[in-house]
Amino acid sequence: MPNVSVERIERDLFELSRFGFNETNKGVYRQSFTEADMAARRWLMELFEKEGLTPRMDGAGNVIGRYGSMDKPVVMAGSHIDSVPAGGIFDGALGVISGLECVRTIRDNNIQLDYPIEIVGTSEEEGRFGGMLGSQALTGNITLAWLENAKDENGIFLKDAMADHGLDYHGVMHAYHDRNKLKAFLELHVEQGPVLEAEKKTIGVVDGISGVFKWIVRLIGKADHAGTAPMNMRSDAFLGLADFAHQIQRIIDEEGTEKSRITIGHVELKPGFPHTVPGEVDFTIVGRDLDEDVMKGLANACRRVLSTIARKHRLMFEYEEMSWLEPKYCSSNIVNMIEQKTKSRDYSYIRMPSGAGHDCQFFTEITETGLIFVPSVGGVSHAPDEWTHWIDIERGSNVLLDCLIDLATD
Amino acid sequence: MPNVSVERIERDLFELSRFGFNETNKGVYRQSFTEADMAARRWLMELFEKEGLTPRMDGAGNVIGRYGSMDKPVVMAGSHIDSVPAGGIFDGALGVISGLECVRTIRDNNIQLDYPIEIVGTSEEEGRFGGMLGSQALTGNITLAWLENAKDENGIFLKDAMADHGLDYHGVMHAYHDRNKLKAFLELHVEQGPVLEAEKKTIGVVDGISGVFKWIVRLIGKADHAGTAPMNMRSDAFLGLADFAHQIQRIIDEEGTEKSRITIGHVELKPGFPHTVPGEVDFTIVGRDLDEDVMKGLANACRRVLSTIARKHRLMFEYEEMSWLEPKYCSSNIVNMIEQKTKSRDYSYIRMPSGAGHDCQFFTEITETGLIFVPSVGGVSHAPDEWTHWIDIERGSNVLLDCLIDLATD
Repeated sequence: MPNVSVERIERDLFELSRFGFNETNKGVYRQSFTEADMAARRWLMELFEKEGLTPRMDGAGNVIGRYGSMDKPVVMAGSHIDSVPAGGIFDGALGVISGLECVRTIRDNNIQLDYPIEIVGTSEEEGRFGGMLGSQALTGNITLAWLENAKDENGIFLKDAMADHGLDYHGVMHAYHDRNKLKAFLELHVEQGPVLEAEKKTIGVVDGISGVFKWIVRLIGKADHAGTAPMNMRSDAFLGLADFAHQIQRIIDEEGTEKSRITIGHVELKPGFPHTVPGEVDFTIVGRDLDEDVMKGLANACRRVLSTIARKHRLMFEYEEMSWLEPKYCSSNIVNMIEQKTKSRDYSYIRMPSGAGHDCQFFTEITETGLIFVPSVGGVSHAPDEWTHWIDIERGSNVLLDCLIDLATD
Repeated sequence: MPNVSVERIERDLFELSRFGFNETNKGVYRQSFTEADMAARRWLMELFEKEGLTPRMDGAGNVIGRYGSMDKPVVMAGSHIDSVPAGGIFDGALGVISGLECVRTIRDNNIQLDYPIEIVGTSEEEGRFGGMLGSQALTGNITLAWLENAKDENGIFLKDAMADHGLDYHGVMHAYHDRNKLKAFLELHVEQGPVLEAEKKTIGVVDGISGVFKWIVRLIGKADHAGTAPMNMRSDAFLGLADFAHQIQRIIDEEGTEKSRITIGHVELKPGFPHTVPGEVDFTIVGRDLDEDVMKGLANACRRVLSTIARKHRLMFEYEEMSWLEPKYCSSNIVNMIEQKTKSRDYSYIRMPSGAGHDCQFFTEITETGLIFVPSVGGVSHAPDEWTHWIDIERGSNVLLDCLIDLATD
């Protein structure tokens, strides 16, 4: 059984991490369409070329290296190479470099393929401009209107950021990868969560990407002087929120699964003064599950509980559904293949959902898609101290290798 | 029985309200040591003079009108004439104008007094610079060091704001009103809360001013990705706060009285992103009661409950006590006198604490002190739609009148 070289992966990951590396806080600052990001893309194209892959950059800034010249549907693997501000060295980058290493291993072992392989380093996965530009473009999930309006939180337009690097945004619409010329898409990624570590497993065989809804909720009561208003004459909006938060676990117990998540991440009290009873509270609810019916059950329960609490506390209750993204399922063929390859290498694993979004979620719509997780130490990601042990990276890459070989041969 | 003229009170209150009045939102902007505030002080001095009181402004900006030249301890009545931004026309101003009207009524009815009366319009009660300058100066509760450092939230120093109006801040230290030359202090004020209206009473006979403690509390957990972190692996700081808030009523039921208040008015989540489990929450607790032992019981219970919750949610719990102000009690002589005068006029009343601070709280330390409340419509204050019915103002002023006559005659 061929094995990847984890030393080569380590070398390339560290080399890639130099693009946008901050010596002070040791974080990677490779936000999409910055100088660092574009320099990393040029570096990746050179590396592809050097390793015998034919490199190209498409109109969305995706860097693709093709291995094999046969005119057959492509087996694609990869992930993104942009980062969040002060990110780690594995998030995204691992999927690209390990994909390249798989191709090198195939090449070094003279393994004959029937289908070409393409390794992709996608652009703008971390959402600086509010989407996942690279994979959305590859899978035909983008509109010109969105492209023209998208801007980052500093008000910089995507089209201007692209133009700064000689990229015409109209080119994004030419990046679509014809689904008939795509055989499968595979992504290896760090888990970015605590589950594999807690369960002491090496491989996460991902069933799918949880759907997610986001609400902005407003409870309106009455702002009173915190000294003069007796407790029983108040309409304290914050106490309404506290009662709701207190019931989240019950809502999940009754309506959810062990894959369900409900999070209140943002809270704003008005007026927000220590000596004033909060007359209003605005907050977010983000709910997730891998089953859309369960998501609906969670959302309905949130609505019911909030209505009841509002009545009890004499509050007005309003909410707006900001987004509702349905779950995306990996292909059962590929999921089973990943599981079987993991078993035959005798690596420990669990099947699990992905709570975070990934490039591959867009590929589920157009081709057979799989996602492999390796453990994140302490569950940490999007931070300079993101880490994954090399032994886990080696094993995850070997599973990716086995799947790529299987998919690229008849 | 002599009666005040509510028409004169109404006329003067409206005239005073023109200083700092905003035609757009109908709010009064008469923050201390602004042009509007100082113009109102000059107007008040002229009005005192016109009505036969001898006016003076002390070094703290307090405007005092003296009625009666006998060399005996003074019966003082009054309140403040500064306002919060966008305040109402009654807060503070009522106590000054009704005091003046009492003197006019005494004069018009040729009532002979044995003690002089002084009506005071204090300065800077609303705390633009963080204290209650006027009444603190009158009662000797101020230090030079504080005076030199006090600034408003825009960074303007008190001493500079005073100098702009020709007031040397050293003069504040000369504003002390010798306690041996003070017989009593009385304040009529709008309730600024909903109790009198809800209880359908005209007069609030105030026992004392609740003590108050303010804590800044920090719960520290772990910021996780809201998608990847399962519910049972989180250390969600906000859920800790929600559990605590949920128990506030129980804490009051077990440790408090019907006069107890616990308020969470300020909450800050970190990082505060919708898709991130809050790793930290900072919030304020403001607790009040009229009995200092009850305050201690409430504070101890808050500490115990927060410790328990922190353990349960795997959080770190820290707090800082920003202030602990003990309750201030009105003199039982004066409280009984107010009650008896109210009864003999056949006005409805209740005894109650003041949850908010007032000028009179500093006088409790140096002389016999009383505080009379009249109802606030809807409990509203510190807002343009603050209102009190004229009939209630008339009655409250009559009670003040009866007390002043009683105190100023042998």
